Amino acid sequence: MTETKKVAVIMGSDSDLPVLRKTIDVLKSFDINVETHIMSAHRTPEQACKFASEARENGFGVIIAAAGKAAHLAGVLAAHTTLPVIGIPIKASTLDGLDALLSTVQMPKGIPVATVAIDGAENAGYLAVQMMAIYNKDLQDKLAKMKADMTAEVVAKDEKLQQELN
Amino acid sequence: MTETKKVAVIMGSDSDLPVLRKTIDVLKSFDINVETHIMSAHRTPEQACKFASEARENGFGVIIAAAGKAAHLAGVLAAHTTLPVIGIPIKASTLDGLDALLSTVQMPKGIPVATVAIDGAENAGYLAVQMMAIYNKDLQDKLAKMKADMTAEVVAKDEKLQQELN
Amino acid sequence: MTETKKVAVIMGSDSDLPVLRKTIDVLKSFDINVETHIMSAHRTPEQACKFASEARENGFGVIIAAAGKAAHLAGVLAAHTTLPVIGIPIKASTLDGLDALLSTVQMPKGIPVATVAIDGAENAGYLAVQMMAIYNKDLQDKLAKMKADMTAEVVAKDEKLQQELN
Amino acid sequence: MTETKKVAVIMGSDSDLPVLRKTIDVLKSFDINVETHIMSAHRTPEQACKFASEARENGFGVIIAAAGKAAHLAGVLAAHTTLPVIGIPIKASTLDGLDALLSTVQMPKGIPVATVAIDGAENAGYLAVQMMAIYNKDLQDKLAKMKADMTAEVVAKDEKLQQELN
Amino acid sequence: MTETKKVAVIMGSDSDLPVLRKTIDVLKSFDINVETHIMSAHRTPEQACKFASEARENGFGVIIAAAGKAAHLAGVLAAHTTLPVIGIPIKASTLDGLDALLSTVQMPKGIPVATVAIDGAENAGYLAVQMMAIYNKDLQDKLAKMKADMTAEVVAKDEKLQQELN
Amino acid sequence: MTETKKVAVIMGSDSDLPVLRKTIDVLKSFDINVETHIMSAHRTPEQACKFASEARENGFGVIIAAAGKAAHLAGVLAAHTTLPVIGIPIKASTLDGLDALLSTVQMPKGIPVATVAIDGAENAGYLAVQMMAIYNKDLQDKLAKMKADMTAEVVAKDEKLQQELN
Amino acid sequence: MTETKKVAVIMGSDSDLPVLRKTIDVLKSFDINVETHIMSAHRTPEQACKFASEARENGFGVIIAAAGKAAHLAGVLAAHTTLPVIGIPIKASTLDGLDALLSTVQMPKGIPVATVAIDGAENAGYLAVQMMAIYNKDLQDKLAKMKADMTAEVVAKDEKLQQELN
Amino acid sequence: MTETKKVAVIMGSDSDLPVLRKTIDVLKSFDINVETHIMSAHRTPEQACKFASEARENGFGVIIAAAGKAAHLAGVLAAHTTLPVIGIPIKASTLDGLDALLSTVQMPKGIPVATVAIDGAENAGYLAVQMMAIYNKDLQDKLAKMKADMTAEVVAKDEKLQQELN
Repeated sequence: MTETKKVAVIMGSDSDLPVLRKTIDVLKSFDINVETHIMSAHRTPEQACKFASEARENGFGVIIAAAGKAAHLAGVLAAHTTLPVIGIPIKASTLDGLDALLSTVQMPKGIPVATVAIDGAENAGYLAVQMMAIYNKDLQDKLAKMKADMTAEVVAKDEKLQQELN
Repeated sequence: MTETKKVAVIMGSDSDLPVLRKTIDVLKSFDINVETHIMSAHRTPEQACKFASEARENGFGVIIAAAGKAAHLAGVLAAHTTLPVIGIPIKASTLDGLDALLSTVQMPKGIPVATVAIDGAENAGYLAVQMMAIYNKDLQDKLAKMKADMTAEVVAKDEKLQQELN
Repeated sequence: MTETKKVAVIMGSDSDLPVLRKTIDVLKSFDINVETHIMSAHRTPEQACKFASEARENGFGVIIAAAGKAAHLAGVLAAHTTLPVIGIPIKASTLDGLDALLSTVQMPKGIPVATVAIDGAENAGYLAVQMMAIYNKDLQDKLAKMKADMTAEVVAKDEKLQQELN
Repeated sequence: MTETKKVAVIMGSDSDLPVLRKTIDVLKSFDINVETHIMSAHRTPEQACKFASEARENGFGVIIAAAGKAAHLAGVLAAHTTLPVIGIPIKASTLDGLDALLSTVQMPKGIPVATVAIDGAENAGYLAVQMMAIYNKDLQDKLAKMKADMTAEVVAKDEKLQQELN
Repeated sequence: MTETKKVAVIMGSDSDLPVLRKTIDVLKSFDINVETHIMSAHRTPEQACKFASEARENGFGVIIAAAGKAAHLAGVLAAHTTLPVIGIPIKASTLDGLDALLSTVQMPKGIPVATVAIDGAENAGYLAVQMMAIYNKDLQDKLAKMKADMTAEVVAKDEKLQQELN
Repeated sequence: MTETKKVAVIMGSDSDLPVLRKTIDVLKSFDINVETHIMSAHRTPEQACKFASEARENGFGVIIAAAGKAAHLAGVLAAHTTLPVIGIPIKASTLDGLDALLSTVQMPKGIPVATVAIDGAENAGYLAVQMMAIYNKDLQDKLAKMKADMTAEVVAKDEKLQQELN
Repeated sequence: MTETKKVAVIMGSDSDLPVLRKTIDVLKSFDINVETHIMSAHRTPEQACKFASEARENGFGVIIAAAGKAAHLAGVLAAHTTLPVIGIPIKASTLDGLDALLSTVQMPKGIPVATVAIDGAENAGYLAVQMMAIYNKDLQDKLAKMKADMTAEVVAKDEKLQQELN
Repeated sequence: MTETKKVAVIMGSDSDLPVLRKTIDVLKSFDINVETHIMSAHRTPEQACKFASEARENGFGVIIAAAGKAAHLAGVLAAHTTLPVIGIPIKASTLDGLDALLSTVQMPKGIPVATVAIDGAENAGYLAVQMMAIYNKDLQDKLAKMKADMTAEVVAKDEKLQQELN
């Protein structure tokens, strides 16, 4: 297995950074190299398109893109690469994230965007790891451990609840 | 006044042509020069971006863009030009056009798309003419006549209804 | 080129003024003459209709109208003029702006309203400038500069982010 | 009690006539005088406003208005009269009538529209009769009979069902 | 003209009282006699049905009913009377009032509910007065004055705005 | 264990019978005694309320109610009984069943309606059997067999698919 | 009658506990034995499936499950038991509970979930009691008393309102 | 690079097969080994969970799952594996696919589902190939060729349109 590829985390606005920090934290917990950028499908389209076009040759394995409202960022990046692109719809001040969800997920034939939940920042990170783990035993083991930890955490909470309630 | 500028009518898929013919017919009824293209924000992004970037210098005054589902076309064109861009959300096989409407209209600050109704092909044409008529007396007169004809048509229908019902 | 035309900014209620100040600021940054009015499609329909009917001869090039809930204002103004009318749906206390969006954008054939995002006050201003710039080189240059500044601002934020994260 | 007032049935487009015939039939079954018009809030606004302004002095007691999409007709008529205005949202080719419903019902303070169900043509007629029956014993009796007949019809259907199923 | 009839204001829960006080205030400003009750379609159905069944003989002209969530109150009252029933959908803690709106307005054939906007408390009052004014010259005059005052208020606000902005 | 109680299947309109036959068939396949009625919350409210009030003493264990649009039937029946009431929202000609779903499920505190999917006629039957099986070993065994058959059917389809595809 | 069966209250996350305490309180007010667990359809699927598979033999009569977002918990439990499963959709930070409602109620044929309102914690408890009361006279009497108390409470509030307003 | 892993295509019902054939065709055009199954989260939960639990060791790299209504299948499979799971929401007879979309995409933290558009069968296939191509040069080349072909096809359609219209 060659070295693990990097993951790009792209946000349409710096106001999305607090949400995306959770994505970055997940990726770093798997020792993935992350490169984070503010790039807008509408305000810096050339930078965004250039980044996506060169992403594979620059060592990226997955692109994660987050945007709100008419969230075109993930789709526009996907148009310029054959890397898998994960889209995070961001909830803005109106419509409760429905506009971003539909703008991200309803992509036409040929250009998929792997969409996660509205504001689903952690899951975008986990999904990127899952993709890169398909041929990477080390990441598979880390994912299995994460899943076991997650299960153990819920089981522990349930046991604690039994003590409290009974 | 210099010569009237052209209007570009861009559709994301050739399946949208039947809807857009109504836009073209409206524009031609005002003797506007129309150039129609199939260009996709996702499948031919370079062609679309290049077209938008050069549209003003190529003699266009307004760009009309129609797309369905995650309808990024109008927004992507608007990102590459300062011409006014009119977006027509197209109803596809699911969600009754709501996805295309929200993807088209909910644009972030700085990059407006002048959105008309779902499948509102004629109105995209009328709106383009209204924009180009701001400094064009001839188009103003034609718009006034169109509006008077439209009123007369409804008045005639009402008169016919009075005869039928009474 | 004759002198630049004025832009009318009409709101259905004085409670919309904080949102519309952003529209006015955008227009003034382009040295556009703005006239602002409180006029209601339902409470002062005669004033609104008279204003729209006489707007072109009174030197206006574009009308911007903002209203919430069953937002009829933009459509009613559009019924009385052939000037382009830009509609801003305003989010009210229920339904998150969806009612105002649909009431504004779903106009019938012949009477378009150029609709921007819910609470999209700045974009209404930019769109009006874009319309008036079709035949105005000075406004075209200002729009190009605004767009370049906007791009530079995002690029600068990205560079700052690179320093912070790395 | 003075003579019964007339009811106006106004539709925004002649395509709505098949739906509105059901309204007219209900009103005629109560021997109400009906006047039907095609008048558009957007295409014949002057005719519509004039009609509403003069409706009370012309002998009308209630106005019923039906329109689809951005359904402004009922609200615009209500702006020009103090007669009660009943709005029927009409289902059009997209959004399943939701746009017309919200455009009709979400009226601002001071200008109510009494909204019935999407395509609720018969109920608009019954509601008009109920309004006019407040001070009219004859209409009250007819309404009571209609209600009793309606109940009897359902009871008869239930009895028939019992025979079929048992 | 005989004496003016009373208006009943019925709420499904005492938590709706703050909203309905606005309805009561409107009615009292027209010197209408108001009787207010807490009656639930689900928790006190017998009281509610009895009230509606006897409302006309008890001197009521209109019933106004307000409820949230699965808002059955207006429809259930309408099932037991031929008086016009006005429904106010109340916004609750989820779904932004959409559930109450659809539960109130989408009534089946034969049993209309005159629905106003979500939380549209004042308009329920105005609509009741409009209904009772059909055959009542005094109420017609008061409505005309209310409408003129409302217009004057908006005109005054516009004039004030002109002074502030210019 | 005493004898098994009956299940009532109530529909608001005879047009719902084709959907409800599937409910009846499910119940009969478990040898449950079914009584089917057409009763409307709005057109025959007294019959409906009387039925619900007396249902337990008349030997019913569960009431199933189906209605479309502003679907008050299940909630109104639930208001008059302490039997569990299952609501089936029926899809009508507009809004795709969303109105009936919200009118049925969003019941206020104290009066639950056990809501199944839009047009979920079979599941209303299965749910009624599950309720009556809580203290009935025979029904428990039949439910277990039904579930096993359902599993076997899907397994068989999968095996058939393997043969076809491979 | 044999001893009353237990009710299981299962939540997908410990953040749902404040909502579910209301369910537990209702059940305890009927002297029902309650067992509460944190079990996730996604994080502890084996625990959840095992619990459901063994629930009937472990003395449970009803399972109540609460979850937010893509709320699979109730449906997954229902897949592993023939006990009636009551689903409570929980409102999360986006979409106002609509996602949880649709994920819970729209179950396919053969696997019903008895769905209550979004955040309808009390009603889940009442519904469970109603199910267990079908063959239990003691619970029937308690339900009748609860209903009478509820009615009396509303009547008392109405009487208090009459004193305050008059 | 070791041999390419298989892709599993799982549908909740055999009625989804016509939609999923498009997924299978896409995968086969990339010479991916596909294994297709009918497995239901609700009707054959044990088979589904067992399949997911063993999928990685059985040579699968990606799981694609399609389901309608309360579409739990993708989420339930994801709960039992750390392979990436792609979800296709299927449009059923009500709600236009919105229920399936929300049930699939709104997954809680820790268990992502990579969601594509409603009925987005081809894109599920392309996305699976993109995931498996991260470390596979041959698939990267095939994806690049597919993308170039897609672009060429749109360009050709545009050229043909130019000839027809001009």
